[in-house]
Amino acid sequence: MSALDAIAGTAQPGTLYGIGVGPGDVRYLTLRGAGLLRSVDVVAYFSKRGRAGNARTIVAPLLGETCAELKFEYPYTDEIAVADPTYRDAISGFYGETAQQIGEALATGRSVGLLAEGDPFFYSSFMHMWHRLEGDFPVEVVPGVTGMSGCWTRANVPITWGDDILSVLPGTLSEEALAERLGACDAAVIMKVGRNLAKVRRAVTAAGLLDRAIYVERGTMEAERIVPLRDQADQTGPYFAMILIPGRGRRL
Amino acid sequence: MSALDAIAGTAQPGTLYGIGVGPGDVRYLTLRGAGLLRSVDVVAYFSKRGRAGNARTIVAPLLGETCAELKFEYPYTDEIAVADPTYRDAISGFYGETAQQIGEALATGRSVGLLAEGDPFFYSSFMHMWHRLEGDFPVEVVPGVTGMSGCWTRANVPITWGDDILSVLPGTLSEEALAERLGACDAAVIMKVGRNLAKVRRAVTAAGLLDRAIYVERGTMEAERIVPLRDQADQTGPYFAMILIPGRGRRL
Ligand SMILES: C[S@@+](CC[C@H](N)C(=O)[O-])C[C@H]1O[C@@H](n2cnc3c(N)ncnc32)[C@H](O)[C@@H]1O
Ligand SMILES: C[S@@+](CC[C@H](N)C(=O)[O-])C[C@H]1O[C@@H](n2cnc3c(N)ncnc32)[C@H](O)[C@@H]1O
Repeated sequence: MSALDAIAGTAQPGTLYGIGVGPGDVRYLTLRGAGLLRSVDVVAYFSKRGRAGNARTIVAPLLGETCAELKFEYPYTDEIAVADPTYRDAISGFYGETAQQIGEALATGRSVGLLAEGDPFFYSSFMHMWHRLEGDFPVEVVPGVTGMSGCWTRANVPITWGDDILSVLPGTLSEEALAERLGACDAAVIMKVGRNLAKVRRAVTAAGLLDRAIYVERGTMEAERIVPLRDQADQTGPYFAMILIPGRGRRL
Repeated sequence: MSALDAIAGTAQPGTLYGIGVGPGDVRYLTLRGAGLLRSVDVVAYFSKRGRAGNARTIVAPLLGETCAELKFEYPYTDEIAVADPTYRDAISGFYGETAQQIGEALATGRSVGLLAEGDPFFYSSFMHMWHRLEGDFPVEVVPGVTGMSGCWTRANVPITWGDDILSVLPGTLSEEALAERLGACDAAVIMKVGRNLAKVRRAVTAAGLLDRAIYVERGTMEAERIVPLRDQADQTGPYFAMILIPGRGRRL
């Protein structure tokens, strides 16, 4: 066993692990995350209908042949607005059933590693399982490199200097709210850009920040694409897309 | 060689690596970071005068006996305000000399791994070396788990749900600026709390957020301490201290 395996450690029975898998490149997984992936009884993950599951694809190089898997396909992904009560009911029903299945595996003494893209406690589906299960089972959350860290690394821009304020804004906000918030920060990251790209571009433009904005699609993943937002004229982007506005604070 | 070592890879000659070492627990280092630490010719790091260097302490379990080290001691740390021109001159002179020493090592064909706590492109000293050296030498930045991810993981609180806006605020801002910004976000992280603790507590209180605020000292490190801010009455905290205000957005 190498020194890395010794540090990484292994899983305990009956425990739920929330494993942050990082931004996309498997090399950015933590030692602890890697140790758990190789030792849990069950690897669990969410995916869009009929897809392989992005987090599952990221960690594929680490999974053995023998590990059991639990795949949970979202009833919807992008087709319905979150504010729609139909969506809310369907998705909370889905999360409830999923938590129950995970709970059943834990109750038989198996360890379950639930994958989360980036960091598990930062806008992730894992949180919806965590708050349903953490009262009843031992849980260990393994922090991960966030998608935004992966993106600013590959864009080759430090995001905050000195006393810069960083705001992380969901692209689901209204155009007005986005423009207003963008006006009040030194550095910004806009997440969940995908279907909101055209609106987000208008908000960035209204805030006078178009020339500083960088568009990053699938940062650190295979089909990575990084361009000035000014040069990205599409109306929509893929799910893994964000916009970075680097700070310009004190350089010493 | 184990599968982890194969994924982690090794260093190339004459290259500067900015290695994010994560929040403190060595298990939260990335595979890539670990692979580089074990293969670079020189491990370089900053430290306070007469101290071991926190980033160096974090990665100690991974370093071999034979690796050369370059330690750079700050001329000042907390004693002088950043706005003071004496500080600015001393620190930029120091960064200039440090970059020159690193450049000399790179020019002889050695690989240098410069440690950064957390993520290298998020408020770090590494950035001051990066902008001086990246025009002249090949550079690879390895993103890391940020201190804030480590802290909210250990505090056992998801930081953002649904459409929450997260603001990251440096504790060096004025009390008024802090209180105003805190009033305009759903979730917040206040960094650089240390000597600013009393002021930051007043700002959090003024914003009506004292009951939601969590104080985290040395998150994921040995002397970790996590308490409601309400119960932390000290006037100052250590360098590694931050305050978390978790969001309360949509739970599905
Ligand atoms: C539901 S959030 C999950 C965030 C994740 N837990 C993290 O720590 O980064 C999904 C959003 O993260 C952003 N994202 C995450 N990873 C990304 C990547 N590698 N490239 C571009 N965007 C990414 C996209 O904006 C996407 O819509
Ligand atoms: C100069 S910033 C460096 C941030 C680092 N690059 C990162 O990604 O977290 C230093 C500040 O980060 C915060 N910090 C970083 N790691 C921490 C930890 N493990 N526990 C508490 N605070 C931490 C403290 O507020 C500290 O003053």
